[in-house]
This record gives sequence, structure tokens and C-alpha cells, in this order.
Amino acid sequence: MPPQCASHRGQPSMQVDRFGNRSQSKPEVRRAIHSVKVGVALVVISLLYLLDPLYNQVGENAMWAIMTVVVVFEFFAGATLGKGVNRAIGTILGGGLGCIVALLGDALVGGVGNAIFAATFVFVFGIAATYVRLIPRIKRRYDYGAMIFILTFNLIVVSGWRADEVIRLARERLVDIGIGLAVSVFTSVLAFPMWASDELHFSIASKFDKLASCVEGCLEEYFISVEEKENRCKANSSGCESVLNSKSNDETLANFARWEPWHGKFGIFYPWDKYLRIGDVLRELAATLASLKGCLQSPRQPMQSQRQLMKQPLEEVGSSLAWTLGELGQRFMKMEKSQPKALIPSKLQAIKEELTLVTSASKLEGSEGLA
Amino acid sequence: MPPQCASHRGQPSMQVDRFGNRSQSKPEVRRAIHSVKVGVALVVISLLYLLDPLYNQVGENAMWAIMTVVVVFEFFAGATLGKGVNRAIGTILGGGLGCIVALLGDALVGGVGNAIFAATFVFVFGIAATYVRLIPRIKRRYDYGAMIFILTFNLIVVSGWRADEVIRLARERLVDIGIGLAVSVFTSVLAFPMWASDELHFSIASKFDKLASCVEGCLEEYFISVEEKENRCKANSSGCESVLNSKSNDETLANFARWEPWHGKFGIFYPWDKYLRIGDVLRELAATLASLKGCLQSPRQPMQSQRQLMKQPLEEVGSSLAWTLGELGQRFMKMEKSQPKALIPSKLQAIKEELTLVTSASKLEGSEGLA
Repeated sequence: MPPQCASHRGQPSMQVDRFGNRSQSKPEVRRAIHSVKVGVALVVISLLYLLDPLYNQVGENAMWAIMTVVVVFEFFAGATLGKGVNRAIGTILGGGLGCIVALLGDALVGGVGNAIFAATFVFVFGIAATYVRLIPRIKRRYDYGAMIFILTFNLIVVSGWRADEVIRLARERLVDIGIGLAVSVFTSVLAFPMWASDELHFSIASKFDKLASCVEGCLEEYFISVEEKENRCKANSSGCESVLNSKSNDETLANFARWEPWHGKFGIFYPWDKYLRIGDVLRELAATLASLKGCLQSPRQPMQSQRQLMKQPLEEVGSSLAWTLGELGQRFMKMEKSQPKALIPSKLQAIKEELTLVTSASKLEGSEGLA
Repeated sequence: MPPQCASHRGQPSMQVDRFGNRSQSKPEVRRAIHSVKVGVALVVISLLYLLDPLYNQVGENAMWAIMTVVVVFEFFAGATLGKGVNRAIGTILGGGLGCIVALLGDALVGGVGNAIFAATFVFVFGIAATYVRLIPRIKRRYDYGAMIFILTFNLIVVSGWRADEVIRLARERLVDIGIGLAVSVFTSVLAFPMWASDELHFSIASKFDKLASCVEGCLEEYFISVEEKENRCKANSSGCESVLNSKSNDETLANFARWEPWHGKFGIFYPWDKYLRIGDVLRELAATLASLKGCLQSPRQPMQSQRQLMKQPLEEVGSSLAWTLGELGQRFMKMEKSQPKALIPSKLQAIKEELTLVTSASKLEGSEGLA
């Protein structure tokens, strides 16, 4: 008999087909779509250079628009929006403050004094902004904005000392960066958008399924005979492990998702924090399953005959638990309320009592049988 | 009696004092040092603009040097080096290919045809480079290099169509970026460097200690009486949790550490993969401890009298395990070989046998006593 692969539920990517979710498409396809979008945005923004009427308007500063598209256009729409907002605010603040400092320097001190004045401000603002940027809470959401602030402030202050028309310079760059931002954001959001919200939603839902497979896999592995073990399928522990190590990925996605506008079933103030909390709970469960796996693989096990005695109730618990997890995952995926709480626990409760009977009996009979 | 805080080993930061490691300094201090370094680098690079003799040499292109410093200068020396190498290679490749395409366009087609030629290359190379950039293996180490390649290639191709001296343009920018890189790398590596290697080394060593505290905390919490529980200190589970969720941080640090040159006790081809594997093993242990905590907090517990029976051997196991973990952590921190394996296991083995006796006895006597 060929070994039965632990999950009859199939791979996560197959399950998603059932839900008809966009996250079903393969990574390669999504990567290709994103690449073509970037290519289109680059060509569109290059027209500022390539078409004479446009070039006459913006001139050499078109460089800033191209730079903005290359740097801001990220895979997820939320990441692009977040970087875009950061870049806009960083540029406006840095440019504004830079102009003030440059004009002040011009008015108060002149000549060499002006250079010292500019250097002092570059030093002080550089230190302050870098320090703020490293504070974890700021770093998480505004790191890029702080960097752009430092860059713009520095460029305007030092070049303002040379260029007489510092305000015109700042305004022109701001306009070009605005054009670049507009092209990035529109291409990112309007054509085949990759929503981080969808990805996070799918990622949490698939965790339920991975854990369900893990529960089934643990029990199956425990009860198959030694000769079958050699051929057994090992897919499950990797699923459990991927859930265990998913925290930072979830947090990154939630961070992007917060920037995303209303779309699909996701509102503007969608409770992404709750997603993170569900992820935490599922990771706790994954930790328990990982250590259960360790216990079941330890050499101190009841004899084969006792194992067979526990087999039926344990398998019932396992499949009931896996079913519950799968059901929760599906409801979560479809954003539906779960069935009344009572249903699932009563089923599990009955099996738990049955199991308590079996284990107390086997303990009394066979505690000497522990190897 | 005031509640005894679970770890008499103290906070990780205190333990590090004992080792005299540089990671002992507080995050705020390190942030401040880094900020001052960035400020100095910014002033140094701004001199290209502010000092007449230098400005006459580099001109407006000094902008690229400033930009390079702002973007490349990261907290860890390894991150700065990695970004610097990426930026250098991306600029050289993108600039080289861009020059070839611009010159080809000039030679083969002219006028409007040239614009279409340039746009086609921008589109094709943009798509290809973006696709490659998203492949996880490339993304991990060369994401920034690929982005700089796209940016430089694009700028050279489209501005090369306007500027007659495309090669001079490319060479000048390359020199300026080189100056920016040199300033960043020297400031980052030579003055109070923050090594990602040290941080990773410390992070792994402190995991041993966190887990040791967690073991002690679990047992202590289990055996204190209910009234004491209200005042108990909860520091330990957070330590265990931080170990559980440390994978992506460890991987990032290892990634930076690979770029760092020989320093301290770390050679050039230092086995950072082994650090990651030790981290994985410690995370497995953390998962087991997390679920042990769950078991101990469940309502199905033996009665108080039975608990007291197990108290002494369990506490011995716990403190022996915690001692072993602490010892391993210290040896690891000091990069010393551990004592012969036999010592620790034999001590644990003896306690394990004692414990088996107690638990089998209590099972036989008291299995009805389970609540």
C-alpha cells in the first residue's frame, strides 16, 4: 500500500482555488505581472525625456521623476503607497526647511560664513533625523520618509548656497517627484494591483490549514508501522515550521495593508491588529504542535498494543481538531461568522472524556510497560 | 515575602557586562553614536559643494555623492558594505550597458527612431531586471544592486539620447558615487563600527540565557502558592517568545555579517550558517518550553500534595537544565569549547531516573486525583 500523504486537504495553493481568491496565482505569474507594470511605468516616465514638448517643460530635472518611479514602485500596492506618502512628506518637509535655512544663511551671513552656517545645519539636522529614524516605532513606518527628509534638506541647503534661485530649484524638483509618484501609484493601484491586504488575509487563512495538516500528520505518523515510516511524507512539519516563523512577514504585510485604500471587502480602518493577534494565537498552537511532534518521536513510548488501544479515540480527536481548524480557516477566508461555538466544543468534549477513560485505564494497566 | 523574580541571572544586558562585550551598550547610546557618524559623513561629503576648489572639480554632480552617503550609510557596518558593493556593481553594470545602448542608438538609428529604440530598451531591461530582483534568493542579497542597475541604466539611456557626451556623463557620476561610497564605508567601518557579527553572536548567546530563565520561571510559577501568584514576575515568557520570533532578525544579521571583513575573533569565511542552525535549535527548545508553560497552566493538574512530592526532583532538573543552558551560552559567548559532554548529561540522567520513580509512583497512587 503506498503511504498516504498526511493531508487529504492538499497543498495551500490548491485550497485557495476553492475560495477563488486572487492569491491563488503562482508567484512567478505575479512576479511577471509586476515586472511588466514596472516596465510600463518606466517607459511612461521616460517620455518626459524622450518627447520634445515634455522635455522643454521639465528639462534635466526629469531625472528626479525617473528616480522616484524606480525607488517607490514596490511589489505590493500598500508598500508603493506607503513609500510614496513618505517620499512626498519627506521631500516637502526637507525642501521647506532647506529653503528656509538657505535663505536665512543668505540674509544673515555671507561668503565663507554661509558655508559654515550650511555645514552646521547639515550636521545638526542630519544627527537629529538619523536618531529619530532609528527609534523602532518610527523606523517601522517612516524610515523612508526620514531618509528622504535628510537627503532633500541636505541637497537644498548645500546647493542653495550655490544656486541663487533656491526656491525655484526646490519647487521644480517637487513637481518632478510628484509626477513620478503619480505614475507609480496609478500603475501600482489601477492595473492588476497586488494588495498586501489580500496577501495577509490569505496568509492567516492558510495557517489554519497548515496546522490542520500538521495535526493529522502527527497522528498518522505515530500510528503507522515502522516499515511504512520509511516512505512517509514529510510535508507537514515544514508547514508547522513556516507558521512558527511567520511573525515578521505578517507584521510587514499588516504595515503595508494599513496604507491601502478601501478595496474588496476591506474597509479603510480595517482591524489589521486583530489579524496579527490571530497570527500570534496560531503560532502558539504551532509551538504546541511542534513540541507534541517532539514528544511523539521520543524513545519513551507505550508499547505497540497500548498504542493501538488509543488509536481510534486519538484519531477521532485529531480529525475533529483538524476539521475545526479547516472550518475556521474557511470561514475566515470567506469572512463569514463561524457556526455557534457550542457545536464544535461539544463534539471535542465527548471525545476528550472517552480519551480520559482510555488513558487512565492504560496508565493503571501498563505504566510498567513504558520503555 | 516579596515575590522572587524568576531569574537570579538578571537581564541579558547585565549578563553581557560579565562578558565585557560591546553589545552591552544601550540601544540609545548606539543610536546616538551612529547618528553622529552620519552627521560627520554628511558634512564631509557636503564639502564637495561648500569648498570652492572641490566644487570646481566635481560641479553639480556632487549631488550624487551626497545621495550615495544618505542612502548607503546603514546602522551596521555589514549593511553599509553590502549596500555599497551593490551600489557600485549596479552602477557599473547599469552605466556600462546604458552607454552601449545609447551609443548603439546613436550609430544605428537617429532622430525619433532613437527615442523608440531607447524606450524599447528601457522597457525590456526594466522588466527583466525587476523580475530577477523579485526572485527570493536574489532579493535577499542583491535587491538594492538590481534597483540601482535599473535606475542607472534608465538614466543613462534616456539622458544619453540628449547629452552628446554620454560616456563623460556616466564616468563623472561613477566617480561621484565612488567618493560617496568611500566616505560612507570609511566612516562606518573605521570609527566605532557597529558589527552585525557581534550583534548576531550576542543575540544567539543571549537566547541561551533567556531560555534558562524561562525554564526556571516555569517551575517557580508552578510551585508557588496561589496567593503568591498574583505578585509573580512575568518577564520570562516574553524572553521565550522573543526567542521564538527571532528567526528573521537572525537571518538579516547573518546576511549583513557575511559582508563584514575580518575583525575581532571573526574570520572572513566565518560559518554564519552554523549560527543560524543553532538559532533554529534554540527556537525548537523555545517552542517546547512555550507549550510546557501551556500544559502547566491547564486546569488538569495533580493535587497540591502530589505537586510537593515532585517539587524537589523537578526543581533539580530545572536548575540543572538552566545551568547547562547558561553554561553553553557563556562558552558560546567566549568562543570556548564546552566541557566534556559526559559531565552534564550524567547529572541530568540521574535526576531523570529519580523523577521517573516519583512520577510512576504518583501515577499509580493518584491517577484519580486528576481534577
